[in-house]
Amino acid sequence: MQELIKVAVDAMGGDHAPMEIVKGAVEAAGSCEELKVFLVGKEKEVNAELKKYPYDPSRIEVVAASEVIEMAEPPVQAIRSKKDSSIVVAMKMVKNGEADAFVGAGSTGAVLVGGQLIVGRIKGVERPPLAPLIPTEKGASLLIDCGANVDARPSHLVQFAKMGSIYMEHVMGVKKPRVAIVNIGAEEEKGNALVKETFPLLKECKDIHFIGSIEARDIPSGYADVIVCEAFAGNIILKLYEGVGATLISMVKKGMMTSLSSKLGALLVKPALKKTLKRFDTSQYGGAPLLGLKGLVVKTHGSSKSTEVCNSILQCVTFTKQHINEKISAGIGAK
Amino acid sequence: MQELIKVAVDAMGGDHAPMEIVKGAVEAAGSCEELKVFLVGKEKEVNAELKKYPYDPSRIEVVAASEVIEMAEPPVQAIRSKKDSSIVVAMKMVKNGEADAFVGAGSTGAVLVGGQLIVGRIKGVERPPLAPLIPTEKGASLLIDCGANVDARPSHLVQFAKMGSIYMEHVMGVKKPRVAIVNIGAEEEKGNALVKETFPLLKECKDIHFIGSIEARDIPSGYADVIVCEAFAGNIILKLYEGVGATLISMVKKGMMTSLSSKLGALLVKPALKKTLKRFDTSQYGGAPLLGLKGLVVKTHGSSKSTEVCNSILQCVTFTKQHINEKISAGIGAK
Repeated sequence: MQELIKVAVDAMGGDHAPMEIVKGAVEAAGSCEELKVFLVGKEKEVNAELKKYPYDPSRIEVVAASEVIEMAEPPVQAIRSKKDSSIVVAMKMVKNGEADAFVGAGSTGAVLVGGQLIVGRIKGVERPPLAPLIPTEKGASLLIDCGANVDARPSHLVQFAKMGSIYMEHVMGVKKPRVAIVNIGAEEEKGNALVKETFPLLKECKDIHFIGSIEARDIPSGYADVIVCEAFAGNIILKLYEGVGATLISMVKKGMMTSLSSKLGALLVKPALKKTLKRFDTSQYGGAPLLGLKGLVVKTHGSSKSTEVCNSILQCVTFTKQHINEKISAGIGAK
Repeated sequence: MQELIKVAVDAMGGDHAPMEIVKGAVEAAGSCEELKVFLVGKEKEVNAELKKYPYDPSRIEVVAASEVIEMAEPPVQAIRSKKDSSIVVAMKMVKNGEADAFVGAGSTGAVLVGGQLIVGRIKGVERPPLAPLIPTEKGASLLIDCGANVDARPSHLVQFAKMGSIYMEHVMGVKKPRVAIVNIGAEEEKGNALVKETFPLLKECKDIHFIGSIEARDIPSGYADVIVCEAFAGNIILKLYEGVGATLISMVKKGMMTSLSSKLGALLVKPALKKTLKRFDTSQYGGAPLLGLKGLVVKTHGSSKSTEVCNSILQCVTFTKQHINEKISAGIGAK
């Protein structure tokens, strides 16, 4: 029998924990036979949820952790002081090789800090970027970095480009992924100091397929597969994506309710529209990997329901089977 | 008779010049009696367009300029060498007091450089920001700076906040405009170096109503009236706004064409939907003012049609009548 891929899940993190987390874990284990899930958290609460479902006890295991890191806690202090918190216990399993990956929906800050302090960086990786998939007209693009390293330097961005390429090629199956840097104009001389310094470095980089600058306007159309940016810009892109989408959809819905004929029309377009808009829903891709760590750390939305949790756990299987970290380790060393 | 408000328009700038520019100027002059428009450009071409319409010759005048600055030209060099270009000639009219305002749809770079080099900054203004209105669920917010000053310093952002407040209060009629700084979290300790330095300065600033950080997600809902950011971030926000909007609308349209019943429904919802989406169209607000100059400089979209040109020209009337520049001059000096 081949060895199972082991994922340690923070059962206490997120707005709907432990209920939706446990449900998502059961769904994931049920849909992939190569998977073993550890649900880390307050035993009583987790077991109370778990017993609602039929599951294979050889594939889902509860691991006790008595503390929970709250959203508002300063991350560094929380990771250091709450040794028996679900995040710390689950991440230690990754560090010790008892698990291949960590999935959590709790405090982003705590997941980022824990990833660096507990799991640790791959040798040569300067800064681990948070890299969610964002929906586009053509499918999905990887936004790297979307919030882990504000005020990053050019050398960091070059590593982001390499790691993002490896991810898109081997996890998402995109051949020769197109890499672009977020800029305020298409010309090479445009940009702020960081972009102007990074652009020639990306151009010289032989192991990526660099296609130049990308203006924010062209991101939703799917013009590039790997979208490289500093975390402050990346966070704006990710959140505005959600914000404009939500506002427009709410306005469309309200707009369709303004007259009798539009209300009738709304009933008729609803199924088709729902399908279309689902394609533009960020939650379908599961969580965002924090790349460049010795083990996989995946951060899912705080508001994650079971589907997103399940997708985040399943993502770890491809990542681990494709030996992404070995590829990153080799790629970061290359020119 | 009261004195007319004089607007010098670059008749040669933009994708649809001179046709749509001339048409927009005729519309503006026709809808506002206090206005005099100078159409600056190649006399023959401009007159050929102008004679298509009935207009009051005391209120529209053609001013000759033999050269045109092209989109691809390096801005500083173009402004310096093409002395008889439509942008330079029109801006000189503002500098010399022959016009109160400039409106142009041509090269953004040339308009920004010309504004600073020819029209000149108001004493005390460190950097003039480009500040478009962006649509929100509640109306519109001012995005300041959206592209004029990359790598700005904290003191610049504080001035942007002051100028933006004055604009929203006196041009848009918003009482006590809410000012927020774009950030990657709501807490005061979040952000990059620039935001962390600027935040306390905005908090101390007595002549604005500062409400703290705004995450990009909350911009479309209309959470703040004045959205302060560095130009690189602002440009991303502006362009992603357009990009996500365009992609979603195109997907909604396509989605509605997928089945017979949805096609029928589409016919019924179309009028209501059109009205809703028009509210989210950036062009309805005319161009973006470049604030802090001795005279008003307005940059409109390169793709502007007559309506946007007309709105941009009309915007100059309120700006001038409300003595915005005198208020900026007084405000920048204040603590």
